Amino acid sequence: MTADALVVFMPSGKRGRFPVGTPVLSAARQLGVDLDSVCGGRGICSRCQITPGAGSFPKHGITVAEDALSEWNAVEERYRSKRGLKDGRRLGCQAQIQGDVVIDVPPESQVHRQVVRKRAETRQITMNPAVKLFYVDVREPDMHDPSGDLQRLRDALRDQWELPEVQIDLPILQKLQPALRKGDWKVTCAIHLGTNALWPRIIEVWPGFHDKPIFGLAVDLGSTTIAAHLCDLQSGDVVASSGIMNPQIRFGEDLMSRVSYSMMNANGAAEMTAAVREGMNTLFAQIVEEVGATTDQIVDAVFVCNPVMHHLFLGIDPFELGQAPFALATSSAVNLTAAELDLGLHPSARVYLLPCIAGHVGADAAAVALSEAPDKSEDLMLVVDVGTNAEILLGNRERVLACSSPTGPAFEGAQISAGQRAAPGAIERVEIDPATKEPRFQVIGCDLWSDDPGFAKATERSGITGICGSGIIEAIAEMRLAGLVDASGLIGSAVQTGTPRCFADGRTHSYMLHDGSATGGPVIAVTNPDIRAIQMAKAALYSGARLLMDKLGVDKVDRVVLAGAFGAHISPRHAMVLGMIPDAPLDRVTSAGNAAGTGARIALLNTAARELIEQTVRAIDKIETAIEPRFQEHFVNASAIPNAVEPFPVLNSIVTLPDVSFNQGGDGEGGGRRRRRRG
Amino acid sequence: MTADALVVFMPSGKRGRFPVGTPVLSAARQLGVDLDSVCGGRGICSRCQITPGAGSFPKHGITVAEDALSEWNAVEERYRSKRGLKDGRRLGCQAQIQGDVVIDVPPESQVHRQVVRKRAETRQITMNPAVKLFYVDVREPDMHDPSGDLQRLRDALRDQWELPEVQIDLPILQKLQPALRKGDWKVTCAIHLGTNALWPRIIEVWPGFHDKPIFGLAVDLGSTTIAAHLCDLQSGDVVASSGIMNPQIRFGEDLMSRVSYSMMNANGAAEMTAAVREGMNTLFAQIVEEVGATTDQIVDAVFVCNPVMHHLFLGIDPFELGQAPFALATSSAVNLTAAELDLGLHPSARVYLLPCIAGHVGADAAAVALSEAPDKSEDLMLVVDVGTNAEILLGNRERVLACSSPTGPAFEGAQISAGQRAAPGAIERVEIDPATKEPRFQVIGCDLWSDDPGFAKATERSGITGICGSGIIEAIAEMRLAGLVDASGLIGSAVQTGTPRCFADGRTHSYMLHDGSATGGPVIAVTNPDIRAIQMAKAALYSGARLLMDKLGVDKVDRVVLAGAFGAHISPRHAMVLGMIPDAPLDRVTSAGNAAGTGARIALLNTAARELIEQTVRAIDKIETAIEPRFQEHFVNASAIPNAVEPFPVLNSIVTLPDVSFNQGGDGEGGGRRRRRRG
Repeated sequence: MTADALVVFMPSGKRGRFPVGTPVLSAARQLGVDLDSVCGGRGICSRCQITPGAGSFPKHGITVAEDALSEWNAVEERYRSKRGLKDGRRLGCQAQIQGDVVIDVPPESQVHRQVVRKRAETRQITMNPAVKLFYVDVREPDMHDPSGDLQRLRDALRDQWELPEVQIDLPILQKLQPALRKGDWKVTCAIHLGTNALWPRIIEVWPGFHDKPIFGLAVDLGSTTIAAHLCDLQSGDVVASSGIMNPQIRFGEDLMSRVSYSMMNANGAAEMTAAVREGMNTLFAQIVEEVGATTDQIVDAVFVCNPVMHHLFLGIDPFELGQAPFALATSSAVNLTAAELDLGLHPSARVYLLPCIAGHVGADAAAVALSEAPDKSEDLMLVVDVGTNAEILLGNRERVLACSSPTGPAFEGAQISAGQRAAPGAIERVEIDPATKEPRFQVIGCDLWSDDPGFAKATERSGITGICGSGIIEAIAEMRLAGLVDASGLIGSAVQTGTPRCFADGRTHSYMLHDGSATGGPVIAVTNPDIRAIQMAKAALYSGARLLMDKLGVDKVDRVVLAGAFGAHISPRHAMVLGMIPDAPLDRVTSAGNAAGTGARIALLNTAARELIEQTVRAIDKIETAIEPRFQEHFVNASAIPNAVEPFPVLNSIVTLPDVSFNQGGDGEGGGRRRRRRG
Repeated sequence: MTADALVVFMPSGKRGRFPVGTPVLSAARQLGVDLDSVCGGRGICSRCQITPGAGSFPKHGITVAEDALSEWNAVEERYRSKRGLKDGRRLGCQAQIQGDVVIDVPPESQVHRQVVRKRAETRQITMNPAVKLFYVDVREPDMHDPSGDLQRLRDALRDQWELPEVQIDLPILQKLQPALRKGDWKVTCAIHLGTNALWPRIIEVWPGFHDKPIFGLAVDLGSTTIAAHLCDLQSGDVVASSGIMNPQIRFGEDLMSRVSYSMMNANGAAEMTAAVREGMNTLFAQIVEEVGATTDQIVDAVFVCNPVMHHLFLGIDPFELGQAPFALATSSAVNLTAAELDLGLHPSARVYLLPCIAGHVGADAAAVALSEAPDKSEDLMLVVDVGTNAEILLGNRERVLACSSPTGPAFEGAQISAGQRAAPGAIERVEIDPATKEPRFQVIGCDLWSDDPGFAKATERSGITGICGSGIIEAIAEMRLAGLVDASGLIGSAVQTGTPRCFADGRTHSYMLHDGSATGGPVIAVTNPDIRAIQMAKAALYSGARLLMDKLGVDKVDRVVLAGAFGAHISPRHAMVLGMIPDAPLDRVTSAGNAAGTGARIALLNTAARELIEQTVRAIDKIETAIEPRFQEHFVNASAIPNAVEPFPVLNSIVTLPDVSFNQGGDGEGGGRRRRRRG
């Protein structure tokens, strides 16, 4: 055996020669290998677990002998007997290098491990949370060299963890002296590492080694629901998820009615601020209870929300957001303490709100941008987050544009005659036979189609109660494909379409999707006003996207990502038949699920992502649709199904849109017909 | 007239050529002349007033024509008629350069003007407060380029005031939008400029131009009294001063009894914290009322105090300061908000505590160091702040040492048989005729000596009630000079001294200073226990100083500065006869008054001084007297009057100390005599 041994760390492949007797953790640190440790090599925290290889590694030119690492020592044995160690694992701080060895660092021992996201196409989250735990040995006070306890703690953090000039919160300073003495001059600090000179900052201190987990919250504060993910800040795992209705709903269903409430009531904004913070505190208490923890274990929280929610949450009157020019109080990211927002988390917990993009494009859109990263894409990417407003991002590595477009609530089933929220019993999938004009459908909560045997029984419990947003889109798109609706959005009569399902309904016609009246259920038909509502919504969405395409000087996009709960359920083919989204290959139209929530989680788990999204948002070109002259033109064209002027070549290569027209006046526009009738 | 005119600014002498028509303020800014402005040149704030010279200035090669500056314009006229302008003054932002001119910038128009201190030997305070006002024009929101109101305010502060990336407190962000609109996009910001990346930070915003003063507090938080100076942060003037007793006195007169209180009572420290903060709030409310202002005009505050007061004020249990090794929780300067300390100032007011030097040498000693600046002295300077503890600094530009020495309360009149606090009626000056051994004295509140005609009448009201700290020092020193007390501190008998004023008093003798019993007043005598108490106190003080001299390897100092209220009244000659302070030329022994309070005021008015004192304190060598073996030796030597071993050559050149000894045992030590008598 030579005095130096060759050590290769996997998966990084970093290699170096070390004197026999070097602890594996020390070797890893010298090579800059990503090997975790909270206790700094004292055999307490077990986060530096590694697995030595065995046998021959021709690729590395190493044959690992049986005794390549030192025998188990007392610390390691004690740890194994008390807490257990997986087969083959060693504590990197205890095992010493005795000969050439290949060492595997398992993912859970890597500081900057990747948190795997469900979707294959997205980048993983690199663990780099704002708050980390550090165990330190602090020098005792010495009358020969008087110094404060905090100063010696700072020295220890600098010497043992390379943390420069650490700051401290007053409540923690107040309990520092007893903690140091109780822990016999060893303490665990929770330190917010932050990204500017405010940091690093000690936000908690425990005597000795602290082995309870610390948590962070990723919160998606929506107008309707507040959803929170509780994440373990060491593993990155989501340990609990929960949601509640936004208690502000009692002040108004939608954003504008809440802005109105604040305008009409002297203390209205403050009431809504108190309500949403109270609601959150209820939610947070409930979510930690699920995992048997307490709210003071939550030391960091990231919030995403639209601008009105953002202002109300911060206690800023949203008055200015209710009128042109829609000025935000601030568009920057906001760093605060939980206490400043009356949130019942750890008293020193920090709160981060992502930046807002513009008066109508909030921190939620910024979170979508962080999650979907159009600014990192080679392809030209259109990202659409569909809600009451659609937030739209278009761009690639070179440039990203953003706007919002007022789609209204039709996509959520509101303003639709048989519309309802997506819930069991709601029709969500529709097919119409182009020959017979007969429909079949699926309802939420049942995998069978309505013409499958057993469907009636399977839906007995939920009933067939209405049609949700994705259902109405499919219904109208299928009606267009089956020749029941023309490009202008008019439903034909029974005579024109050849099916009795089209029936006169006031001055227009409707299409009977499901008549439940025989069994006491509702009649679910698609009416012409339903189609008008969807036309308005989809035209707003499309014309926003088209406007951004104009600004970039392009006619098509490479990819379309649909974000949000609605986007997750939408059928790309039907959306394109409807002309909601620009023409694109169907396999390039994907759903991102709750991308805003994912963006919040990324910002929670990876501090670097906060800086990144702040830079990205500053660089985004903000377009205000309301003052763009071409928006109106695009809107009118996009009112047609799919569009009055756009060719949609990809769509036309996969479907044939019947060339029908049910406009009795012949001008191809419903409003015109009515005008003429009146005249 | 040429197209360019030569402009010379006085007193800086900065000169340059400017196109005709350049406003004086612009010329000053381009040359870096120290000319103030809050409104940025809009003719509102009047802080840029200047006086143009007239006639010939051969030194500058300039003859100033009558029309060297432009005619008065409407803005200037309006200002003059509304607010008035001193004769010859112009508004620098309005008056334009028309020809060669010499311009005087009066002190009150200089941003960094000097605040004059009373004492000639000290450096002046340069105005550079942490909080300043800035008036800005903010761009209105524009839908073509959406941005937050805060972002546009930041842009304005950057463009109009060269302030980079300004931060904001949440409560100010909450009221920013209405303020901007109410002020028609013009606001005045109070900005804490700070000294690190936390800053600059907007701590208040007012619509339009705000012309009320903003104030800062310099607070000397003593064990016995809390004294506060209210300073105008624009002029630097102390506009009101006030003090109250420290309400913590009810928990214990001196520091150690308060530390004991916290040890004996579960909630003791918290009670004392609440008491001192409450007391301060009373004081602050009272001090602003004196000037007809409100506490929310106080936007900055600086505190100095000893370590126990420091910890109790911050809500830190002083337990550790009551026992070796006397560890401070923190020795660094502390930056907090007033809210964190429950102080009733402006909600966003900032609080700064100077650093502590060591467990017994607090932020008050740091403030003394800032005021007296031994670290800037060419001379070797001894600075002594005399209180219950003496804090001692010794050094010069090269090195500064610090220690504290437990003098006890004798210097404050406690432990003295006829002792009392310095108040009307207390004997403060004493002379004893070396031939007749007859005393004469002065009392506080009367300029006459006791043997002057009219003394009895003049002191009728106050009476002659006791002897204060400076009085007892003079009395004992005069007794030593008159041969009534020997070097060991023993008072001679009537026979030994030849005066009946020396009378047997128990087992020792006393000296009758004033017998008021005939008129119902007290008998004021100096007893041998009085002398013992003063010997202990002065020996502690001297031996602390001597220890620092040892550490520096010197036998004498160039200058002695006596700080504190006691130091202000002490007679250098008598102090030296007593051997309280090292031998030095008498004219080099001066009083600094309340140097701690002055240090607080410097830190309040000049942010740069905060950084300076933090560096200075880090560089100071801290000596713990309790563990220095030579301290005890020095103490024993210094118990003699003036000293058993030190030669005191300067003192001996101006006075002759009678070579008397009243020790009947002959060993020169009072304790020895008693021992022998008992044996």
